[in-house]
Amino acid sequence: MNLSIIIMILGSIIMLTGAFFLLPMITGLLYGEFHIALIYLGLAGACVVCGFLVRLHKPKKDTFYAKEGFVAVALSWIVMSFIGALPFKITGEIPSFTEALFETVSGFTTTGSSILTDVEALSHASLFWRSFTHWVGGMGVLVFMLAVLPMTGGSSMNLMKAESPGPSVGKLVPKLRHTAFLLYAIYGVMTLVLVLLLFVFGMPLFDAVCTAFGTAGTGGFGIWNSSIGNYSPLLQNIITVFMLLFGVNFSFYYLILIRREQEAFAMEEIRWYFIIYASAVALITLNLRTGADVSVGKSVADTVRLAAFQVSSVMTTTGFSTADFNRWPSFSKTILVLVMFIGACAGSTGGGMKVSRIILYVRQIRRELATQLHPRTVKVLKMDGRTLEKEVLHSASVFLMAYVVVFAISVLLISLENKDLTTSFTSVAATINNIGPGMNEVGPTGNFHGFSTLSKYVFIFDMLAGRLELFPILLLFAPDTWKK
Amino acid sequence: MNLSIIIMILGSIIMLTGAFFLLPMITGLLYGEFHIALIYLGLAGACVVCGFLVRLHKPKKDTFYAKEGFVAVALSWIVMSFIGALPFKITGEIPSFTEALFETVSGFTTTGSSILTDVEALSHASLFWRSFTHWVGGMGVLVFMLAVLPMTGGSSMNLMKAESPGPSVGKLVPKLRHTAFLLYAIYGVMTLVLVLLLFVFGMPLFDAVCTAFGTAGTGGFGIWNSSIGNYSPLLQNIITVFMLLFGVNFSFYYLILIRREQEAFAMEEIRWYFIIYASAVALITLNLRTGADVSVGKSVADTVRLAAFQVSSVMTTTGFSTADFNRWPSFSKTILVLVMFIGACAGSTGGGMKVSRIILYVRQIRRELATQLHPRTVKVLKMDGRTLEKEVLHSASVFLMAYVVVFAISVLLISLENKDLTTSFTSVAATINNIGPGMNEVGPTGNFHGFSTLSKYVFIFDMLAGRLELFPILLLFAPDTWKK
Repeated sequence: MNLSIIIMILGSIIMLTGAFFLLPMITGLLYGEFHIALIYLGLAGACVVCGFLVRLHKPKKDTFYAKEGFVAVALSWIVMSFIGALPFKITGEIPSFTEALFETVSGFTTTGSSILTDVEALSHASLFWRSFTHWVGGMGVLVFMLAVLPMTGGSSMNLMKAESPGPSVGKLVPKLRHTAFLLYAIYGVMTLVLVLLLFVFGMPLFDAVCTAFGTAGTGGFGIWNSSIGNYSPLLQNIITVFMLLFGVNFSFYYLILIRREQEAFAMEEIRWYFIIYASAVALITLNLRTGADVSVGKSVADTVRLAAFQVSSVMTTTGFSTADFNRWPSFSKTILVLVMFIGACAGSTGGGMKVSRIILYVRQIRRELATQLHPRTVKVLKMDGRTLEKEVLHSASVFLMAYVVVFAISVLLISLENKDLTTSFTSVAATINNIGPGMNEVGPTGNFHGFSTLSKYVFIFDMLAGRLELFPILLLFAPDTWKK
Repeated sequence: MNLSIIIMILGSIIMLTGAFFLLPMITGLLYGEFHIALIYLGLAGACVVCGFLVRLHKPKKDTFYAKEGFVAVALSWIVMSFIGALPFKITGEIPSFTEALFETVSGFTTTGSSILTDVEALSHASLFWRSFTHWVGGMGVLVFMLAVLPMTGGSSMNLMKAESPGPSVGKLVPKLRHTAFLLYAIYGVMTLVLVLLLFVFGMPLFDAVCTAFGTAGTGGFGIWNSSIGNYSPLLQNIITVFMLLFGVNFSFYYLILIRREQEAFAMEEIRWYFIIYASAVALITLNLRTGADVSVGKSVADTVRLAAFQVSSVMTTTGFSTADFNRWPSFSKTILVLVMFIGACAGSTGGGMKVSRIILYVRQIRRELATQLHPRTVKVLKMDGRTLEKEVLHSASVFLMAYVVVFAISVLLISLENKDLTTSFTSVAATINNIGPGMNEVGPTGNFHGFSTLSKYVFIFDMLAGRLELFPILLLFAPDTWKK
């Protein structure tokens, strides 16, 4: 393990987080929150100095393999979360450090679960910071670093591999720095367009910026206690569409940008993403219209809008809400829980298991059936016209196993709270899939304040493990990782 | 597809089921239920004649591959269930045919879920038949047939493969007919010992026989509304031990029998089976003793006995109960739900995912972590000192995928009932894992009567799919299976 190069990367992360603190500082100044702004400024200064000092320790060699990539990414996210939690603690806006850490991890991992009972009590600076963590976490802080800082060859690739969601980095591999830059450019422009649209159609600018951060990162922190519920139907529809767009594999936009539209539109994952989305909306609308008292006095269009918003929010693992889906009939709730697990596309800012993994699983089941029927024929699995390599299929399988095991142990630990099974189950589902709200006590109108400290650390673990797709975080606990 | 040989096997199954009907007939005669006995006799006669007629159609060729094995097993179980449901319907004891079929499938698959609100209203003949289905289903009806009837070479192996639970048939492959016979001999002797023990320690003979059938097959149908709750603590303890013994991989007993004790005691699956069992009992006892009002006024020994019984029942997927674990604290309930999924050993009469599969999953996760750290080293996975073949690992992975998919779709269909999520989730868990009771509405004091016909067929599908480990049943729905 080349620890020295990892320490250098952590130094950069500390400096970068310090630089990020300048944004909430400016926000604080604009809103006359001078005391708060000063805290952010002080922290920014401290981080830049500390980061600089850490970086003084130059690495002896620049060997950087997959192993270093995983550990660097996992530690970066942990360090960044600890630092990011400081302002909440120091300003006293979140008095418990555990809760401040929970909120920050929830932000960076784009989960959007909150321990706050009254979001509106936060200062503008902290509301901005809270939403901004979503934006950085969505595309990945190391990808950001790659786009901005010059790095040695081996490191970039292995960092990006470890931080990018989905079964494989895929089409974006060559010319890594350029790619990282392009990704953030697409991401930035789309966010900007969303801010403008929201602003033009009547949302105050501050709301528009924070909401856009939450949408772009598929995070889900709202700045009002009612989440998105108080905005006009038009604004809600704009958010519905943009949540969906940010849940699309960014390879799609990249391919469009480099004028390979045909390849872009042939991406099977995206087709299935929209098919699943449309089916879920249709089924829920049907279910809500037939016999559910939730839709009494509502027009069909209203019901469609509600269903479209909630499915978009849950499937892209954003977690905004405009309806208390806790009160929906079981069939609709079950569909929501299922799309919670399916999640968004690989290579998007969304979480969950990813549509492409589901496709891999279904194709493997079908192949297994075919093999049972004709044991001697070898059937090759393809996606987007290309043969799927054994390694990809194998890691997708092992991902499922690890996912089930981590999930089961987490639910068991949370059940020590003695809450009902649905709360334990969906609170873990909401955090490991980086969604935000679950059902019952952690439903759209609930929050995570009432859990014990142990449970909060379980959730923190799950959020990080979910965002980084398990293995980087699990590796931190493998004794072998720390051997010389 | 060699349909003619499958039809011949089905003919044998029909005759065999007819022969089985003679046992409840005798029971009916002994208890003076002449009308009922006559019905069983009539059905027995009809089955033997029909089966004989079906068997007249001789197969043209005796090709019999894996494909034929799967289809023959799946169809045998379906045909046997339809026939087995007839007496309940004809005697009028279960007026709805769907419910009669549900009860019979639940019997043969050793699930033990019931639609009866008053078990005690059944005649002795039908109570006997209901419990006897557990006994036959536990070890497998085709294994029974193999032990009794002469078959062509290819067919035996492929039938046994398709019906035996667990990742691979393993140690019992050579000399198949002999093995099938030995398996049933061990099974029969163990059942007999249990009957004697129960009888000697105070259980009425009829109760002892029926309870032994339910225990041996890890089925769980009780003949009293209170399940096993009214028997003495000693009898409950005997049942606890025997449920556990029938959840052990029968290879163990086989190896003991052929004097290869060392190999038997080295079986890793059995070691883990007992470790998981003991941990679950210890954790639940601890949880029940601290703060749960369930154990108020009970001694520690009482609590241990309750926990030991319930875990044994759920983990071996038997489903007897001596306590309403629905009222236990969440932690204990979550442990029960987890062991529901883990299940018993492969090659036992129990259901669930099987301990050996869980071992395979955990070892694959560990290997994946090692591979991430040292990408160039190839690590071979072993069990019981032998290298695990790629095919075994691969089918265990695909099993997990298929399991998750079937589970999710089932929960979705059941949620149309608009029951709470825990009821939908655990009712599917209870049927697909062949356990019996779940939580909430399907808890130990509840039953499956209140579900719609659609839901009952979903459960019937899940029970059969779970007992036959998914693929034989799934293959029936693959269009390719029925191509010439």
